[in-house]
Amino acid sequence: MILGLIVKITLEDIQKHLDSLTKPIGSLARLEEIAAQLCLCQQTLQPQTRPRNMVLFAADHGVVAEGVSAWPSEVTELMIQNILGGGAASSVLARNNGTALRLVDVGSLGQPRVESESYRCAKLAAGTANLAKQPAMTKAQFEEAYAVGQQEAEDAVQGGARILASGEMGIGNTTAATCLTALLCGCDVASITGRGAGADDAVLHKKIAVIRKAVERVQRSSRGDLVEDIAALCGFEIAAMAGFYSRAAELTTIVVIDGFIATAAALIAERLAKGSREYMIASHSSAEQGHRHLLNELQLRPLLEWSMRLGEGSGALLVMPMLDAAAEITKIMATFESLGIER
Amino acid sequence: MILGLIVKITLEDIQKHLDSLTKPIGSLARLEEIAAQLCLCQQTLQPQTRPRNMVLFAADHGVVAEGVSAWPSEVTELMIQNILGGGAASSVLARNNGTALRLVDVGSLGQPRVESESYRCAKLAAGTANLAKQPAMTKAQFEEAYAVGQQEAEDAVQGGARILASGEMGIGNTTAATCLTALLCGCDVASITGRGAGADDAVLHKKIAVIRKAVERVQRSSRGDLVEDIAALCGFEIAAMAGFYSRAAELTTIVVIDGFIATAAALIAERLAKGSREYMIASHSSAEQGHRHLLNELQLRPLLEWSMRLGEGSGALLVMPMLDAAAEITKIMATFESLGIER
Repeated sequence: MILGLIVKITLEDIQKHLDSLTKPIGSLARLEEIAAQLCLCQQTLQPQTRPRNMVLFAADHGVVAEGVSAWPSEVTELMIQNILGGGAASSVLARNNGTALRLVDVGSLGQPRVESESYRCAKLAAGTANLAKQPAMTKAQFEEAYAVGQQEAEDAVQGGARILASGEMGIGNTTAATCLTALLCGCDVASITGRGAGADDAVLHKKIAVIRKAVERVQRSSRGDLVEDIAALCGFEIAAMAGFYSRAAELTTIVVIDGFIATAAALIAERLAKGSREYMIASHSSAEQGHRHLLNELQLRPLLEWSMRLGEGSGALLVMPMLDAAAEITKIMATFESLGIER
Repeated sequence: MILGLIVKITLEDIQKHLDSLTKPIGSLARLEEIAAQLCLCQQTLQPQTRPRNMVLFAADHGVVAEGVSAWPSEVTELMIQNILGGGAASSVLARNNGTALRLVDVGSLGQPRVESESYRCAKLAAGTANLAKQPAMTKAQFEEAYAVGQQEAEDAVQGGARILASGEMGIGNTTAATCLTALLCGCDVASITGRGAGADDAVLHKKIAVIRKAVERVQRSSRGDLVEDIAALCGFEIAAMAGFYSRAAELTTIVVIDGFIATAAALIAERLAKGSREYMIASHSSAEQGHRHLLNELQLRPLLEWSMRLGEGSGALLVMPMLDAAAEITKIMATFESLGIER
């Protein structure tokens, strides 16, 4: 019924418990859906949302040479330092709601000056190759990055994490994510290409042309090997997130999905490890047009429709208190029976 | 520009600060809008979201005699006890995110057995009159309930609250709120009448007939006195919430609005004290069809679209951590300048 799970507590048991609480049946709507998913995946009526870990994967993208981004690649390195230094949106949000934050560098161009226990250097290369001209990475590199993500999920769960999330930092990665969306969902490129972190009209037009050409090349030269095709358009951080999500699911652990790029990774996880989506909670729907297609393909409904477009796991971090609320409701509310009220 | 505010820090100052932080401009979208509203209303770039207070107003409704609710009026008293006993959704959510919860009984039918510092008995009557047959309350009663709400907002602000919210408990109050929505927004009754806390088809049809008749009677016999007309269709808890919101605005304090019934009170506040809406944050859009009309009339965009329909301030409590997140982002994030990055 749900990947990897030995079901002793069924969805019916959970619904019965939620319906016994002092509220009109179903009146907490999405909050009850989160509660039910937590209970089912954790196989308990006492779900836990702490400890929880956010793992950010960072990498650079060769395609930035084509002029598809409003920012230079150097910003990736500076933002890695900023995130670990506590000054980035993700650092602030993680601290604010008690989520342990860790950053794994799977392929930045620079040499971030970081001394932090929350940092791991696991570079596969100094950025991907330029996907406009050649495969962004080899199949072997994809598998290696994927394995780094799997290992991170496993380590976090071994360390006691009850909820996982991941996010990314990588200048140019909306271009890779848009290529992957076109490849995996079969969407028209122009309709799903957005401004990323602030592209103007000229950059946007260039971006559309680059993406269209790259996707067409990969489709034309495909040998029918899905992983190879994905690798040709991917980023190291996207491959790592995909591995992270698939391993989390194998370990029956809920993962909170962030924005467009993270959701592209989530769809890769689902394609390579069917059923992974059962453990996913979609935090938000971003300003990137492709995000909606990915969420539809995954049949995930986002909790927030705020048009955010920051990345760094910021959307996933923002909704963590809602998971807390869902768990608390489930564990602490009184029942009608205890109040002596009959329905 | 904004009611009651002496503006030293303008929206432009605030936007400039938000734009200096290490993120693409505007990329946190709604979170930045909340941050800007907090900064503007508190006139600072260091907004505070604690301490914060949720005041629940409870009362019964004579119209329940018409069979418009799935629950009997006795449930109001039992839920008052449950809320103060810590077993209700609102109690759990408030404790979970550090919001002080208080309940003011402005007109329940029963004699709730409560010994709690968080309880205030300020009953105007044992429930309203049956609005299907006569005015629910006199204009004087409305003004008295409104004043109770004003006093509660004032006391909370005097006590140091930086954020206020209110909510309600009262079997039958979606009927009153739907009457008020029809009166104030001019909506067709059938299209805005919902199932409240679980009405079946038969109850729903009765509810529509009762509401239509009551609204028509009030409109037909109106002497052009808006307060008198509102009073005829109101609940004591709704009047108190309206007073609460209007006084919060006068004291330049942000109020988080809950669901359908609370938003009906918010629209009353705006009609009686124009500009109050500037201090409102709409937490969610509920399953009740009338809620959307009220939010449109107030030009408020809800943070969540979750179709919740519990009341008790539950939606407002659920979004409090988002206000925390908005404030923290504003106060703690690094600037691009500090990182040596030029835009």
